[in-house]
Amino acid sequence: MKHSRDMTAGLPAEDRPAAGVPAEDRPTAGVPAPDRPTEDRPTENPPPENRPAEHRSAADGSSGDRAIVLVDEHAHAWSPRTARSRLREGLSGPTAGVAAGHTQANLISVPADWAYDMLLFCTRNPKPCPVLDVTDAGSWTTALADGADLRTDLPRYRVWRDGEVVDEPTDVRAHWRGDLVSFLIGCSFTFEWALTAAGVPVRHVEQGRNVPMYVTSGQCRPAGRLHGPMVVSMRPVPPEHLSAAIRETGLLPAVHGSPVHCGDPSALGIRDLGRPDFGDPVDAEPGDIPVFWACGVTPQAAVMASRPPFAITHAPGQMFLTDARDEQYRVL
Amino acid sequence: MKHSRDMTAGLPAEDRPAAGVPAEDRPTAGVPAPDRPTEDRPTENPPPENRPAEHRSAADGSSGDRAIVLVDEHAHAWSPRTARSRLREGLSGPTAGVAAGHTQANLISVPADWAYDMLLFCTRNPKPCPVLDVTDAGSWTTALADGADLRTDLPRYRVWRDGEVVDEPTDVRAHWRGDLVSFLIGCSFTFEWALTAAGVPVRHVEQGRNVPMYVTSGQCRPAGRLHGPMVVSMRPVPPEHLSAAIRETGLLPAVHGSPVHCGDPSALGIRDLGRPDFGDPVDAEPGDIPVFWACGVTPQAAVMASRPPFAITHAPGQMFLTDARDEQYRVL
Repeated sequence: MKHSRDMTAGLPAEDRPAAGVPAEDRPTAGVPAPDRPTEDRPTENPPPENRPAEHRSAADGSSGDRAIVLVDEHAHAWSPRTARSRLREGLSGPTAGVAAGHTQANLISVPADWAYDMLLFCTRNPKPCPVLDVTDAGSWTTALADGADLRTDLPRYRVWRDGEVVDEPTDVRAHWRGDLVSFLIGCSFTFEWALTAAGVPVRHVEQGRNVPMYVTSGQCRPAGRLHGPMVVSMRPVPPEHLSAAIRETGLLPAVHGSPVHCGDPSALGIRDLGRPDFGDPVDAEPGDIPVFWACGVTPQAAVMASRPPFAITHAPGQMFLTDARDEQYRVL
Repeated sequence: MKHSRDMTAGLPAEDRPAAGVPAEDRPTAGVPAPDRPTEDRPTENPPPENRPAEHRSAADGSSGDRAIVLVDEHAHAWSPRTARSRLREGLSGPTAGVAAGHTQANLISVPADWAYDMLLFCTRNPKPCPVLDVTDAGSWTTALADGADLRTDLPRYRVWRDGEVVDEPTDVRAHWRGDLVSFLIGCSFTFEWALTAAGVPVRHVEQGRNVPMYVTSGQCRPAGRLHGPMVVSMRPVPPEHLSAAIRETGLLPAVHGSPVHCGDPSALGIRDLGRPDFGDPVDAEPGDIPVFWACGVTPQAAVMASRPPFAITHAPGQMFLTDARDEQYRVL
């Protein structure tokens, strides 16, 4: 087993985030819910059946007592191969901004007898679950990344039994099974470069945090034994940049495409943007509109709801780095 | 069993195409192959391993001894429900132009023990095989068309045993099996309305013919027991309309998206545009560029190459009419 290193280890001291600020004391998103007064907004999301028990634990990709930062100050310039190599050696942390311009992917590995249900679930729910690659049973290689090992090259994993997280290692070789089929699913981190290039501010990156993710009240279309709610990521977008944000992400359907909703979070059953189910809350600027994209953590919500006997996933926000370039997935 | 009616039955006599012109005497496409002189072009495509034995039979969707026309002069204005009802009653013929603005789909039904391989094949080859819906085993209904019956509502089917066509009925209730999983795959007829709206001439529609389709020398990425070549459709496009054609179709990835190739047919292993493997040859205008889109007949080529024990498909060019509107599949 490799050893996990402090994700800020490579940063000069002056760039390290201040420690000791409890997550619950950090400012919350502050994005207005258009059709209800702020004082009426409940302070916490409702606890749906499948809301993760480990809500806001460090393994959610939330930062615990400090802000999330890039795994290394030079990580944006790394090649995907270099990034995978560093992560294999034990570097850990959220991958937003790593290996700029290269496609990142969510991972879900299930036993072969669940693979058809998972592939069908993804096919029937293409916005949250756009499939970029599917391995053959037992294989830990992928056509998307030469020389990669899906068992070691992600920053952090979650190991699931009967819908519960039983381990959160940085290497899953000890958990691997010969019947596992792995799905790589498009990740919205991929389109953040397109947003930036189009002049759209990406608040959580500006603030050095993981993107906030929320379990919605909307159910995915079920497939065989798999069912569950849709998970979304949220980015506050200034109104003058909204059309560019929709256009740029719409051109990338393989990484979730255009938003599923803009504005009122309550339309998705989200009561408090300041308390995401995964990742970190993000501070909105005055006037920002909350924009919601379908999220590749959705298969994990399906695992929680449907309780397959075994699964391995990435930890939210800690993605697989592919060799593919974002432009390869642009439809135009 | 329903009875098949003459597809021109609803046409006034003066609109009916002249009969008696053998297909082989009709003018061929005449699209120049840019990098080789016309006189060097061989007159026939090479016979690849999996080229269909029934090359250019009427069941290819080719017109036999007359030009292909719309199944009914009013068919473009039909609702999808009306179209399905007429087709269920026995009307038959290519569906290009029927129920304008509504999404058309290729059908392939395979036994449940082949369903994972087929779904994986589609996932790994999203340009030719964009999946719009997958039924549960044995079901003949689809979320894409209220009240539809996949066993009766297509104009014409092909029934396959061990990779060979054994029947081409207009109703497959007698062939149906309780273990069949049906895949509805996006069809390029869908984007022809977007092309027309953008001012791009669609030659085969202008000429009242089925679109020409070709088996290419390019192999799809295999999946389990399934392998086979990619099939493409070809439309001659005037150079001044090429960027619009690419843009409009690129915005519709669920119905094959942007072209896979523009120009020289030999790059795809196509030796003679005048002899398509399915559908009709189309006459190009001087200067037209041959533009190739991945085609939903590709799963049929995989059936020919991989020889599953049983399958049911649509007959090329004779598609399933869904209730979905083309715009629902536009990414922007």
